[in-house]
Amino acid sequence: MIDIQKQPDFRNIPIDQVGIKNLKYPVRVLDRSNGTQHTVASINMYVDLPHHSKGTHMSRFVELLHSYRNDLELSLPTLSKILDEMKEILGAQSSHVEISFPYFIEKQAPESGSRGLVDYACRFLGTSDENDQIDLISEVIVPITSLCPCSKEISLHGAHNQRGEVKLATRFRKFNWIEDMIELVEGAASCEIYSVLKRVDEKYVTERAYENPKFVEDIVRDIATALNEDDNITWFELSAENFESIHNHSAYAYITSDKMS
Amino acid sequence: MIDIQKQPDFRNIPIDQVGIKNLKYPVRVLDRSNGTQHTVASINMYVDLPHHSKGTHMSRFVELLHSYRNDLELSLPTLSKILDEMKEILGAQSSHVEISFPYFIEKQAPESGSRGLVDYACRFLGTSDENDQIDLISEVIVPITSLCPCSKEISLHGAHNQRGEVKLATRFRKFNWIEDMIELVEGAASCEIYSVLKRVDEKYVTERAYENPKFVEDIVRDIATALNEDDNITWFELSAENFESIHNHSAYAYITSDKMS
Amino acid sequence: MIDIQKQPDFRNIPIDQVGIKNLKYPVRVLDRSNGTQHTVASINMYVDLPHHSKGTHMSRFVELLHSYRNDLELSLPTLSKILDEMKEILGAQSSHVEISFPYFIEKQAPESGSRGLVDYACRFLGTSDENDQIDLISEVIVPITSLCPCSKEISLHGAHNQRGEVKLATRFRKFNWIEDMIELVEGAASCEIYSVLKRVDEKYVTERAYENPKFVEDIVRDIATALNEDDNITWFELSAENFESIHNHSAYAYITSDKMS
Amino acid sequence: MIDIQKQPDFRNIPIDQVGIKNLKYPVRVLDRSNGTQHTVASINMYVDLPHHSKGTHMSRFVELLHSYRNDLELSLPTLSKILDEMKEILGAQSSHVEISFPYFIEKQAPESGSRGLVDYACRFLGTSDENDQIDLISEVIVPITSLCPCSKEISLHGAHNQRGEVKLATRFRKFNWIEDMIELVEGAASCEIYSVLKRVDEKYVTERAYENPKFVEDIVRDIATALNEDDNITWFELSAENFESIHNHSAYAYITSDKMS
Repeated sequence: MIDIQKQPDFRNIPIDQVGIKNLKYPVRVLDRSNGTQHTVASINMYVDLPHHSKGTHMSRFVELLHSYRNDLELSLPTLSKILDEMKEILGAQSSHVEISFPYFIEKQAPESGSRGLVDYACRFLGTSDENDQIDLISEVIVPITSLCPCSKEISLHGAHNQRGEVKLATRFRKFNWIEDMIELVEGAASCEIYSVLKRVDEKYVTERAYENPKFVEDIVRDIATALNEDDNITWFELSAENFESIHNHSAYAYITSDKMS
Repeated sequence: MIDIQKQPDFRNIPIDQVGIKNLKYPVRVLDRSNGTQHTVASINMYVDLPHHSKGTHMSRFVELLHSYRNDLELSLPTLSKILDEMKEILGAQSSHVEISFPYFIEKQAPESGSRGLVDYACRFLGTSDENDQIDLISEVIVPITSLCPCSKEISLHGAHNQRGEVKLATRFRKFNWIEDMIELVEGAASCEIYSVLKRVDEKYVTERAYENPKFVEDIVRDIATALNEDDNITWFELSAENFESIHNHSAYAYITSDKMS
Repeated sequence: MIDIQKQPDFRNIPIDQVGIKNLKYPVRVLDRSNGTQHTVASINMYVDLPHHSKGTHMSRFVELLHSYRNDLELSLPTLSKILDEMKEILGAQSSHVEISFPYFIEKQAPESGSRGLVDYACRFLGTSDENDQIDLISEVIVPITSLCPCSKEISLHGAHNQRGEVKLATRFRKFNWIEDMIELVEGAASCEIYSVLKRVDEKYVTERAYENPKFVEDIVRDIATALNEDDNITWFELSAENFESIHNHSAYAYITSDKMS
Repeated sequence: MIDIQKQPDFRNIPIDQVGIKNLKYPVRVLDRSNGTQHTVASINMYVDLPHHSKGTHMSRFVELLHSYRNDLELSLPTLSKILDEMKEILGAQSSHVEISFPYFIEKQAPESGSRGLVDYACRFLGTSDENDQIDLISEVIVPITSLCPCSKEISLHGAHNQRGEVKLATRFRKFNWIEDMIELVEGAASCEIYSVLKRVDEKYVTERAYENPKFVEDIVRDIATALNEDDNITWFELSAENFESIHNHSAYAYITSDKMS
């Protein structure tokens, strides 16, 4: 049977990335407290295509993934191995994966100690270049409470507050727990969020947020300060978005920094 | 050229709704302040299909819509006419349209008077039955501020608040302005939301929300009370959802009532 | 500490549903081939609120869920138990849960036998009424290939085809496997879809779809015919939506039937 | 009244972008056939914030936008003026806007000449840097039909095809019509899509796609070839995504090129 993809191409245009996008797959993720946890990912897998090849072989990406069936663990060694295998089975110079998944952390309410799971949207981006150098980016999206310093200052009582989201992507020297990045972000919010809050806890988080007002500007600056002091982090990209309780649009702040440059 | 859709069908199964879904189209909507306003809709159009027909003629829905090009006004007379024409051109007993669109209202900030546009997600649902009776439902989704009564009561200072959304669908006797339904909902919130708020306004909305705490339960009850007292409303379906600032999930309350039954 | 929610309410308006919405949670689902499988759900949990109570206690929903931590299995006995417990801990007359999750089935390519996982969006809806009667609805969204009979008939060669989605919700007498409903739907498509297809398989599915053209009308009728003949099914709601390859909108058909009425 | 945002900041961290996100607003866009057209946009507006300032003044972004009320035309002169004004009213060194909107083009069916509107998701990104240099990127997302060359070649009859989306972002020397970029993309597809297709047209598009098979790789290469030959284009970023009719995931290809480097 003829292999159309394998035919030569004469347009003389290499393609930066070609592959499959938005494949859903169950995965296991390293969990600081419990070893690993089961979750479900959306996966993109791309390789480069040299100018002389007509097409890539899309089915091989899914076959490769399925060779890990029942054991697809999103650890650094496994991701590196997958990036290498992608290049090998597709005859490519570079390979790239993007894996998005919800991650769950059991948190205890601050006063009652009641337990519940909070979900965080996470993403790993991995690239293997033509020199087999692996580049890995780890990203977390952390829901937070923010309370407006201006509103607090100018009002007789109360202050508008809201759910916000901080997105933090990092490059790092050695292994970096998802949990560590989440805790760093939560420490810079007016208050962290929880799944279960009894009344004693609701009193605590309400007062904690009120005593700790933060603009989106403050949140990204406090996180950037902590990242600048952390030698393990070599690069970061960071945004805070508040789903304003007094508007139907968001407040937004963004910082990126390459600490190696 | 053969017309496959027109062929007989022998499975003896009538189809409740068949047609096109998610067609984007520019429209004009009646505007209480300005006559009409331009916006963009997502449109579903369905008819019934009797058991003996193999298929409907999908292109006729879009042709019908396009016969209004440059003049598709979402008024009751036009919607009724479209529902009638759908039945006629498709030989159907019943017809149904669903039209979703953002709607803009210019609001003045409560103290400074600064002006800005707030967007509201709206939807019209129209049905013409086998007796040519028209049934129309008008729906608005209204962003609001809600402030938690429990959090206020138990905390030394402050109270958690957040953006919420109220979805209100109504049937009515005579014409019902989108603006009227939106104002009814906004009056039941801890505070309404705005696009432009200067500092004097931010002080106002912060204090107003703090003095006016509401659970989702309170919001739907206050709206239901107003709807029960309004003779023009014959049926409603109503929900309030808070995007809790202290959780990563929502608080939710729902009431429906057929006042004619 | 005062319990605001517990206070009396004098508006005389009962609330149909009140609770939490869009809580993400890891769950296990019964799996016909493997016993159970791990996945991640989005969960809504509501109870009714009598007219004389001011508010429900939102944290109890999450506590109840978390009492199943590490063992939240979406089986009929567990769902029934959760519905009962919701009524008990919240002093409610009725309770309702909605649980949405991706579900994975390993499929073999039709010729090569290559294996891959296909994901299906599923949902369970459970209600316990004031007489402790449990009502359960099981829903699957099945991606399919559809090929247009009209396009095939009138064209010299080829026929437009596309990805479609069939949504099927059922009530049933005795246990009903997700896999059984998915197979029933896939059997009514022009061809089922796969994750891994080698060239011999791609030839198979291309020819199978071409030899098996179906309108959305045909798909819902063929599924309805099968459901009508299945004594285990007592009610169904069924739609097919084609993401037309020749349009930027969808073709849609919908049938619902209460077989007990 | 105290101005908290205006206070000094001592963390010594400048912020790359701060402002408002996801504000909905009605706009007018230049239309090659009709002068202008009305549509609805989602708008992000950011400025930089120097290290010594605590916060930006979020309300000024919305006030600025509203100063164009009833006349917000997304032309190059207006966008440049808005970028300048953002810097001025916020005391910033750089400013950035992102404006996303659906755009409608009336197309005639290829044989019958029947008319209908097709919607295209478009986006303008504008930046004014510290030297008042304006950088503008224009982006279109174009729905297309793609037909698989491999499937056609190996199958007895038929070939799988599907809706796809091409996203094309360009920088250019002189004005560049949205319509021109869309036509360039549509010319590289297996066939362009339409809103209204009568049977003679459906025959035409079916046969045209069958005679014109394209991988995602072919589509991005053919578009890149045309862009490389167009002296007006100085930079592009280009992807094609097929919503495969035989899979539940997408096929994807991506090329970017800075023609000035």
